[in-house]
Amino acid sequence: MMRAAGQLSRRAVLGLCAGLSLFGSLALSGAASAQAPDPLPSWNDGATKTAIVDFVTRTTTTGGPDFVAMGDRIATFDNDGTLWSEQPMYFQAAFILDRIKTLAKDHPEWKEQQPFKGVLEGDIEAVMATGNQGLGELLAASSTGMSVEEFAAVVKDWIQTAKHPRFDRPYVELVFQPMLELLAYLRANGYQTFIVSGGGIEFMRPWVEGVYGIPPQQVVGSSGKTEFKLDGDKPEILKLPGIEFVDDGPGKPVGINRFIGKRPVFAAGNSDGDLQMLQWTTLNTGPRMGIIIHHTDAKREWAYDRDSHFGRLDKALDEAPKRGWVVVDMKNDWKIIYPFEK
Amino acid sequence: MMRAAGQLSRRAVLGLCAGLSLFGSLALSGAASAQAPDPLPSWNDGATKTAIVDFVTRTTTTGGPDFVAMGDRIATFDNDGTLWSEQPMYFQAAFILDRIKTLAKDHPEWKEQQPFKGVLEGDIEAVMATGNQGLGELLAASSTGMSVEEFAAVVKDWIQTAKHPRFDRPYVELVFQPMLELLAYLRANGYQTFIVSGGGIEFMRPWVEGVYGIPPQQVVGSSGKTEFKLDGDKPEILKLPGIEFVDDGPGKPVGINRFIGKRPVFAAGNSDGDLQMLQWTTLNTGPRMGIIIHHTDAKREWAYDRDSHFGRLDKALDEAPKRGWVVVDMKNDWKIIYPFEK
Repeated sequence: MMRAAGQLSRRAVLGLCAGLSLFGSLALSGAASAQAPDPLPSWNDGATKTAIVDFVTRTTTTGGPDFVAMGDRIATFDNDGTLWSEQPMYFQAAFILDRIKTLAKDHPEWKEQQPFKGVLEGDIEAVMATGNQGLGELLAASSTGMSVEEFAAVVKDWIQTAKHPRFDRPYVELVFQPMLELLAYLRANGYQTFIVSGGGIEFMRPWVEGVYGIPPQQVVGSSGKTEFKLDGDKPEILKLPGIEFVDDGPGKPVGINRFIGKRPVFAAGNSDGDLQMLQWTTLNTGPRMGIIIHHTDAKREWAYDRDSHFGRLDKALDEAPKRGWVVVDMKNDWKIIYPFEK
Repeated sequence: MMRAAGQLSRRAVLGLCAGLSLFGSLALSGAASAQAPDPLPSWNDGATKTAIVDFVTRTTTTGGPDFVAMGDRIATFDNDGTLWSEQPMYFQAAFILDRIKTLAKDHPEWKEQQPFKGVLEGDIEAVMATGNQGLGELLAASSTGMSVEEFAAVVKDWIQTAKHPRFDRPYVELVFQPMLELLAYLRANGYQTFIVSGGGIEFMRPWVEGVYGIPPQQVVGSSGKTEFKLDGDKPEILKLPGIEFVDDGPGKPVGINRFIGKRPVFAAGNSDGDLQMLQWTTLNTGPRMGIIIHHTDAKREWAYDRDSHFGRLDKALDEAPKRGWVVVDMKNDWKIIYPFEK
């Protein structure tokens, strides 16, 4: 390759790079498609897969009526329940509970004090009974009072060692193989893939680049207050108690506008927390695609929607037909759920 | 080119893209440099220019001790006074004053009401006397109560039509040619260039991509509160009165952490408002570079530092030698200041 490179001017190579997405899309359309490898091998053939490939092909076909300029190819993905599982509770909630148990040895008073008592005794009812204030105390105790770099190290350690109760595997193994393929497929076609999650931005950034290929600057999430401090020659950003921004529901378009500054052309979610992101993305001119992951597979993953405590899907499901959002039926649209099934 | 492209596999071209920054840096170092065009033609030869080229070469030389991985090549730039001029007042302040004058016809009461009265009568003393509350009223009256898309249209119109009093040219023509070259040089070497400005994020995004080649998702700035609203089938994000985040001074590292999530390896500023960004960037392990633009050219631009109301440079100037920050002497380091001098 180096020899071939030597024959090309820098400008020429830049031109090739700019043209890459075109090659990608052409390879998937028309005569070439027979030779092209399936970009979504874990997706069963059918209306859902066809709709996705058709959208990507149309929006990357130069000269076509639905062509979207490279810089405008913004795709946003919810995380919990969309890129990885979220049962029996959001994985970040499991992290917080584990963290409280770890820190308890330095807090004997927690044995008698809710919501900590409930966490230590596994009495989730008692924890829930403390409401938002109690949950705020757990968040503050588990995730603040240290620098962002110290917190990142704590998260990295947990994500590699903690295991999901049902699968007895690290939580990062419970990502959805079909969605990993979709992320890679979009990026190969010039799309910038962003996470837009109600989860904590500092909880996601330490591991999402390795797992999803999404760098920190493409992660939008909820955040706590932080403060810059210079201690001699050592600068730090400290995580403080107190919520800065909740990136959920109507907060998602607000977060998208604040962090990205462009309206996405593609958005994927799985709950009513993604409703406004789907509206903000698809109720616009030009080609737009909205996807809802419907958890319909109790055997391989979970089956839930309107009555679920985590990832409740109700209004968005009702609105999907009217808005033309594609509802992914996990049970029937996905050949496998997790990478370890390969 | 298409023929050459046809001979290369997609993977091969991807490889070339990944290797691009290497070609770029090699072209600037060693034997090849004789043939390579000067990447910074508006910078006079000397210690400053040498330090910049040396840093970029070292951090992009594969296998070298100071090599920085592509994804970690984060460069942050202040805007006012660093990428464009900021005298006799921040250009966004000029926008706000112009906007108030435009809206005054619908607000007869402003004739008798400060700070509006002062704006309409050109009595800046009276405006300043109203303090932060008065300035907040001007910001709210000029820049809120509309959707972000409507505000972007207002900004685009102003940036194209309003003229700077001294130069009688649109404000966007008062960008620094040497800094445009530095931005392009860093990007050609695999750096991601971000703006981290105390200015309003919604004020910058409509025009910085065209002027600096920096897309909206790489702009960090101060922001006001916003709200998502769905009106029938029309979603909007409304700009509300009230400050959301001040991206200045200690707020800059906080903004960098929140929006980018990685510590920059290169930062450029020109005032004490950039002090903490420079500390956060350079007081770290590995190769780091901090640059301060010192306004020393009263003839071609302006000369000011410690006593200036806008872009005051005092503490950061004192700290520069101790931290090894490169202080750019505009008068002696820059061949030309503005693109129109070419």
